[in-house]
Amino acid sequence: MTDASIIDGKAFAARLRERVGQEVARLKDDAGLTPGLAVVLVGEDPASQVYVRNKGKQTLEAGMQSFEHRLSESTTQEELLDLVETLNADPEVHGILVQLPLPEQIDSAAVLDTIDPTKDVDGFHVINAGRLATGQDALVPCTPLGCLMLLRHHLGDLSGQRAVVVGRSNIVGKPLAQLLLGESCTVTIAHSRTRDLPAECRNADILVAAVGRPKMVKGDWIKPGATVIDVGINRVEGEEGKTRLVGDVDFDEAVKVAGAITPVPGGIGPMTIACLLANTLTAACRARGLPAPDLTL
Amino acid sequence: MTDASIIDGKAFAARLRERVGQEVARLKDDAGLTPGLAVVLVGEDPASQVYVRNKGKQTLEAGMQSFEHRLSESTTQEELLDLVETLNADPEVHGILVQLPLPEQIDSAAVLDTIDPTKDVDGFHVINAGRLATGQDALVPCTPLGCLMLLRHHLGDLSGQRAVVVGRSNIVGKPLAQLLLGESCTVTIAHSRTRDLPAECRNADILVAAVGRPKMVKGDWIKPGATVIDVGINRVEGEEGKTRLVGDVDFDEAVKVAGAITPVPGGIGPMTIACLLANTLTAACRARGLPAPDLTL
Ligand SMILES: NC(=O)c1ccc[n+]([C@@H]2O[C@H](COP(=O)([O-])OP(=O)(O)OC[C@H]3O[C@@H](n4cnc5c(N)ncnc54)[C@H](OP(=O)(O)O)[C@@H]3O)[C@@H](O)[C@H]2O)c1
Ligand SMILES: NC(=O)c1ccc[n+]([C@@H]2O[C@H](COP(=O)([O-])OP(=O)(O)OC[C@H]3O[C@@H](n4cnc5c(N)ncnc54)[C@H](OP(=O)(O)O)[C@@H]3O)[C@@H](O)[C@H]2O)c1
Repeated sequence: MTDASIIDGKAFAARLRERVGQEVARLKDDAGLTPGLAVVLVGEDPASQVYVRNKGKQTLEAGMQSFEHRLSESTTQEELLDLVETLNADPEVHGILVQLPLPEQIDSAAVLDTIDPTKDVDGFHVINAGRLATGQDALVPCTPLGCLMLLRHHLGDLSGQRAVVVGRSNIVGKPLAQLLLGESCTVTIAHSRTRDLPAECRNADILVAAVGRPKMVKGDWIKPGATVIDVGINRVEGEEGKTRLVGDVDFDEAVKVAGAITPVPGGIGPMTIACLLANTLTAACRARGLPAPDLTL
Repeated sequence: MTDASIIDGKAFAARLRERVGQEVARLKDDAGLTPGLAVVLVGEDPASQVYVRNKGKQTLEAGMQSFEHRLSESTTQEELLDLVETLNADPEVHGILVQLPLPEQIDSAAVLDTIDPTKDVDGFHVINAGRLATGQDALVPCTPLGCLMLLRHHLGDLSGQRAVVVGRSNIVGKPLAQLLLGESCTVTIAHSRTRDLPAECRNADILVAAVGRPKMVKGDWIKPGATVIDVGINRVEGEEGKTRLVGDVDFDEAVKVAGAITPVPGGIGPMTIACLLANTLTAACRARGLPAPDLTL
């Protein structure tokens, strides 16, 4: 048996960003519209600072406007809600992202639900969750959207495939299950209470791991030829006291059994920001009553 | 092997209504609060008239206030939206139900989304769908809520059970899948594109059929000892030119294999209005900031 083909999320994400850039240029020319993304960072969390910097950089590279709002660690809930209201009302802002986690004096759910759902490019607003759950046009959380794009690119029509999603978080597992159901997969959602997880996984044509446990999914959990999407990002000890990133799937074992697999890093990770740009473009089009371009490549 | 035990939805629904009645009496005594349900019927559909009459009757029997609004077939969307707004603002109305189907000049989705989500006792508002999908307190559609109550009553803790839901409608299949996931079942959702439906069903500890195809689920699709919930209500030709109701499960075959099964009629059917009363009670309590009683018996 030959090894699985490696699904190159990094390359796909680069092409997606390029595609978004082309559509942005067209929107400027045809409709005089420049999509704008506002990112709000509260406090000094170093990882969040890196994310926000990357988001800002890629937003500009795609030809969009980027608005960065950095607030101090001691910001009150009221101040943050005021800023969100201002961004809701700003016609140059089509997407609003409040970087999580927020300091503990702030109620994250209240902040996320204050964002105008039509500008909620993270897709975390309860209205977007409801729209996704009922099959209406929604802004969809970026990581599951990235998974879906890679799957559609790799497999084409997903209808009738048996998909097993391990993990049921509101930001990955559950919305991805909804998306796969929308593609007419037969979908199983598994989690920590699932009785025989290896057997569930062995039944999957499409296996998604979004758990947060390094190398949990073993080679013999995978149906030969299955497509494996590894969402996990786990930092583990590597050689010489360095750390390195591994997924939720034991890649070295899985690559011998699967038909195709996303690596970590370089698989789903790079898709997340690219999908954020795609969502911002979608939101800008819808705000103008224009059809949102289909960004599936 | 002995036959399956029959899950008596009619008796359970009667007890649930009684229980709701007791809680309503207590609310009146302790908080001076009488829950009120407003039902809106547009047009002359005979089946809808029967439903609405039954709802009104059972609402009064539970000690609640019942408000019936009958509008003519030619009602405009604006008139209906005005009525909904009036009911939203009425402090005596804790639950609002607009009977479907609506005449074709009216956009049902727009009407449902105009109902105050805290009064949306049908659970069809996008915000309630989103709250359910993200694991927050929601008003849950009545039929899936009825299924869950019967399952919990019959099986106790559902955690780790393999549940297969056949059907993915917004009013039955999808919300029930969310509820079962919330109970920590491992949940599979199947539908018309599912490849080997009998094999999927055979894997279920809990099998739910919500399809609308008479007797589709055969005895040999059922795992011995499984709990079978038959949501289907299909009118078929019976003897001597009369019609009769059958479910989506071939009851005579299934009863020999399953551990327990809901009959049609007398299974899920009677639960739906009882759960509507339960939702109205829940909505009234929440409107006052009181804890909603747990109505699982
Ligand atoms: N690529 C990206 O851009 C990206 C984005 C987001 C997240 N991630 C990564 O994806 C992973 C999951 O993230 P998340 O936010 O969804 O995590 P989360 O909220 O912690 O959810 C983890 C899920 O995994 C389940 N689980 C835990 N242990 C399990 C076990 N032994 N067997 C089966 N299921 C188990 C949990 O089940 P219960 O619900 O029963 O507890 C839960 O549903 C993490 O590694 C995270 O870093 C990556
Ligand atoms: N007891 C009650 O109070 C109550 C309340 C509501 C409904 N019901 C009854 O429950 C049944 C379902 O109602 P609904 O509103 O959910 O129906 P619906 O909106 O028509 O949905 C039917 C579902 O069944 C699926 N399906 C159709 N043919 C199938 C097949 N051959 N194999 C597998 N799946 C198939 C469909 O799949 P696709 O999505 O792929 O088309 C769809 O998801 C009906 O009989 C209805 O009368 C009873």
